[in-house]
Amino acid sequence: MQHKRVGVVLAGCGYLDGAEITEAVLTLYFLERAGLEPRCFAPDRPQMHVVDHLTGQPTGETRNVLVESARIARGKVEPLDRARMEELDALVLPGGYGVAKNLSDFAVRGPEADVEPELVRLVGEALSRAKPLVAICISPAILAAALRKLGIGGARLTIGDDDGTAAAVTALGARHEACTVDRAIVDERHRIISTPAYMLGPGPRDVGAGIEQAIATLAGWLR
Amino acid sequence: MQHKRVGVVLAGCGYLDGAEITEAVLTLYFLERAGLEPRCFAPDRPQMHVVDHLTGQPTGETRNVLVESARIARGKVEPLDRARMEELDALVLPGGYGVAKNLSDFAVRGPEADVEPELVRLVGEALSRAKPLVAICISPAILAAALRKLGIGGARLTIGDDDGTAAAVTALGARHEACTVDRAIVDERHRIISTPAYMLGPGPRDVGAGIEQAIATLAGWLR
Repeated sequence: MQHKRVGVVLAGCGYLDGAEITEAVLTLYFLERAGLEPRCFAPDRPQMHVVDHLTGQPTGETRNVLVESARIARGKVEPLDRARMEELDALVLPGGYGVAKNLSDFAVRGPEADVEPELVRLVGEALSRAKPLVAICISPAILAAALRKLGIGGARLTIGDDDGTAAAVTALGARHEACTVDRAIVDERHRIISTPAYMLGPGPRDVGAGIEQAIATLAGWLR
Repeated sequence: MQHKRVGVVLAGCGYLDGAEITEAVLTLYFLERAGLEPRCFAPDRPQMHVVDHLTGQPTGETRNVLVESARIARGKVEPLDRARMEELDALVLPGGYGVAKNLSDFAVRGPEADVEPELVRLVGEALSRAKPLVAICISPAILAAALRKLGIGGARLTIGDDDGTAAAVTALGARHEACTVDRAIVDERHRIISTPAYMLGPGPRDVGAGIEQAIATLAGWLR
């Protein structure tokens, strides 16, 4: 049996300015446990900013998204512009504010957000090849923004039950469905799986249950 | 049933200069899944240095161990000197070079290493109360150094099968036993559990299997 390869897009290292670490690690863990081979990617560019995770306040530091993502990936992370869906069987987007700050400017502009062009390209490649997408936490909102840029409406997505973010997802042309943290919403037509994770919390066990279900659904599709 | 609380000592965020992120996250995940409540602690001091995890080279930056550990703990981390074993039921030490750089100087001095005095104090408090200790990856070597400072020899520990590190553990007065990544060595007498994790690797699935077994053994003891 040939290994199925799954791209995992990281947005830094830390939920306030980068990738949500628990979501990223549990994604890699459940992918490997399902017999899928993760390949990590991140954009090679400065973070929007750096946040002190003890105080929640921005610091004056400068950090690079690819370099910080390498902390989670133990150095095994490639620049996002090298990712090709023809070499991957699926794409997973863990969450964290970094997705809304470094992979898009959703944190600042909401439904008017721009999205990292390389991510829009990858999402387009995935859809045109009917390869699955998994979006975790806040990532479904950024996925909705990417889908709008590609002219695709009506994807069923969840970001949990946050009214403001759900309204933004709807404004972007997707259909939001409420979901608990331990479950995932499955859009069979667009081959998109989403789970709320730390949009709801409260901790690794519950967040892990939703991610485990999302990855199990993905593994079923790739079997 | 009252929640059992387990202290988790973090040494930063990233395996080359801080806590090994996958080990730390999977520790928190398996603790919660076993019904145990993790409480994270880290020393409030500068890291020995900062390493670019893409190149493996030190950078000129300065980062604080407690502040970086907060990335893994989502802000819920307390200074190590506030930890008291009378408030905790067990203590877990995930690995990463940070354990040998920020919680001790084992990375530089090997078996002659000094150990963070607050960690030595905690280990002593745990032993005198017969509260379990779990040491992951390189942490068993630093635990051996702490035990030597406390005058306790003969603890059965594993760091996997690395000859040099095993020799250092032996030189510190502990007994090293080889172990595969998916298992844990259990010292019933000293109530110490250890598992090699990324001393062996290769990835989250296998490292997770060993940590899962270590935490399951701990949970059995605390039942």
